[in-house]
Amino acid sequence: MKYGFGVDLGGTTVKIAYFDETGTMLSKWEIPTVTDDGGKRILPDIAASIRQYIAQKTVEPADIIGIGIGVPGPVNGRGVVNKCVNLGWGVFNIADELSALAGFPVKAGNDANVAALGEYWKGGGKGCENMVFVTLGTGVGGGIVVEGRLLHGAHGSGAEIGHMVLNRDETEKCGCGKCGCVEQYCSATGIVRLARRAMAGTDEVSRLHRFDPLTCKDVFDCGKAGDPLALRVLEQFYAYLGEFLADVCNVVDPDVVVLGGGVSKAGQVLLDGTRPYFDQYVFHAARDARFALASLGNDAGAYGAFKLALDAFGG
Amino acid sequence: MKYGFGVDLGGTTVKIAYFDETGTMLSKWEIPTVTDDGGKRILPDIAASIRQYIAQKTVEPADIIGIGIGVPGPVNGRGVVNKCVNLGWGVFNIADELSALAGFPVKAGNDANVAALGEYWKGGGKGCENMVFVTLGTGVGGGIVVEGRLLHGAHGSGAEIGHMVLNRDETEKCGCGKCGCVEQYCSATGIVRLARRAMAGTDEVSRLHRFDPLTCKDVFDCGKAGDPLALRVLEQFYAYLGEFLADVCNVVDPDVVVLGGGVSKAGQVLLDGTRPYFDQYVFHAARDARFALASLGNDAGAYGAFKLALDAFGG
Repeated sequence: MKYGFGVDLGGTTVKIAYFDETGTMLSKWEIPTVTDDGGKRILPDIAASIRQYIAQKTVEPADIIGIGIGVPGPVNGRGVVNKCVNLGWGVFNIADELSALAGFPVKAGNDANVAALGEYWKGGGKGCENMVFVTLGTGVGGGIVVEGRLLHGAHGSGAEIGHMVLNRDETEKCGCGKCGCVEQYCSATGIVRLARRAMAGTDEVSRLHRFDPLTCKDVFDCGKAGDPLALRVLEQFYAYLGEFLADVCNVVDPDVVVLGGGVSKAGQVLLDGTRPYFDQYVFHAARDARFALASLGNDAGAYGAFKLALDAFGG
Repeated sequence: MKYGFGVDLGGTTVKIAYFDETGTMLSKWEIPTVTDDGGKRILPDIAASIRQYIAQKTVEPADIIGIGIGVPGPVNGRGVVNKCVNLGWGVFNIADELSALAGFPVKAGNDANVAALGEYWKGGGKGCENMVFVTLGTGVGGGIVVEGRLLHGAHGSGAEIGHMVLNRDETEKCGCGKCGCVEQYCSATGIVRLARRAMAGTDEVSRLHRFDPLTCKDVFDCGKAGDPLALRVLEQFYAYLGEFLADVCNVVDPDVVVLGGGVSKAGQVLLDGTRPYFDQYVFHAARDARFALASLGNDAGAYGAFKLALDAFGG
């Protein structure tokens, strides 16, 4: 049996997991992400942690397939990072550098793309060949798998679907500097924003006014309780999400659309609310795409990172 | 040296070309597409024409790599056609069927996707790994190449980007049955439609009124001559096209966007007019995508079809 590591590099912690070649996670742990000094300690820390683990476990280095890593920024197919603002990183080949430090081959990808690969392999997209993964969290991220392979993009920004244009008349700016991005309507913060706008535009009594600060979960809870204003806000959100997902499917034509991130905790109601709008906007030949919820939670990144290494070096 | 065939199957004619393995087109000819009786003669006619060519040329069948074919409808990665309305075809495996008739291995793809592969290999996308190809003709079609491989889609409708939603407030129906598709604004007919709407909405004197029927080329010609109404129509078209291309690039992040089809005969003015809107709507990490014009014209489909076979069977 061969083994390997999946690394999910975040802005505050690094999740590292140890897998066997069948994809069983045998162990996982975290180390802090030290972003001081342009983040120059991050890769040596990861390499040291992995080497220490191998020494303790008395694993034969010859039995290690390699290391996969997901990074919070654009990474192209050759492992070149194109600025990770959160980590203080510029442009360099992370795969080559971590490989030199750890002594094993390394394959790198963008964190959302890598999480997509994890859900494709062991989660909500299991058994499919073509998948669109969407994380609806503070922002909206995505990852696309085409015939079993990640779409990295020429500049490492493949599947940045949270920044597709959903409303060209929007005047407020998205975090990316553009106006009218998907992320401004379909993220957890986007839903709260839609609710605030709705509340400001009416004198209608609503449970939504009871919350300060108002959260995305509050909006869903008010909807469940039958609050009419909350229901209208959710309907508006479902319409935006359905149109957006249809457009992604009009490009990619996947077997399945997997929804993850905090907003997906709303569960089946999210899929049921969005589907009619999706059906309205999707091209007929792509309408058979299934909707599914992500199932790996925070482990998706580690699974996907190891899968990246397994595909590259597993022979 | 090995050889093979690229077949571009259209609704009225079948273009067949003979290539050597380096991609040099050695010969090309056409046969009519006989769509009578549910199109059941189409594949036997193609097989007979290819066998006849081989007999005349005294090529050794052992030197034939295979046949690639582009089909006007959805085709998945395994060669299953999912209805070609123009040909009268239902659902069947065209690759298996043509292979049995012709005696060579066959690989099939959607015609727009296959043309994209041709432009990727020998045309406007030459030298790139990731490409978006857009045909702006009577309709709007597309093809996407990811790290050198065609995105077929799970149901054979990958890159049906002409049916992305561009205007959710549109009330007129697209040919696909939806409202507000890219094709309604960015095709040759879409441009004429924008011009008609503009003419109907103003008393302004314009050269556009001189043409009946008005064509897409007339609108571009009036723009070149400085007609203010035509220039405003073109600006509106460039804005739609720029937003649309930005959204596709936000998903795919290609090296290059190649524009083909009748509208692309407008040339550099099309690229220059569209670019500022593209820059406004594209995610920053994907903004370095180049724009280029298609260069293979009607031969793109045959080149791409042969390349499909070469990739599959060329060893």
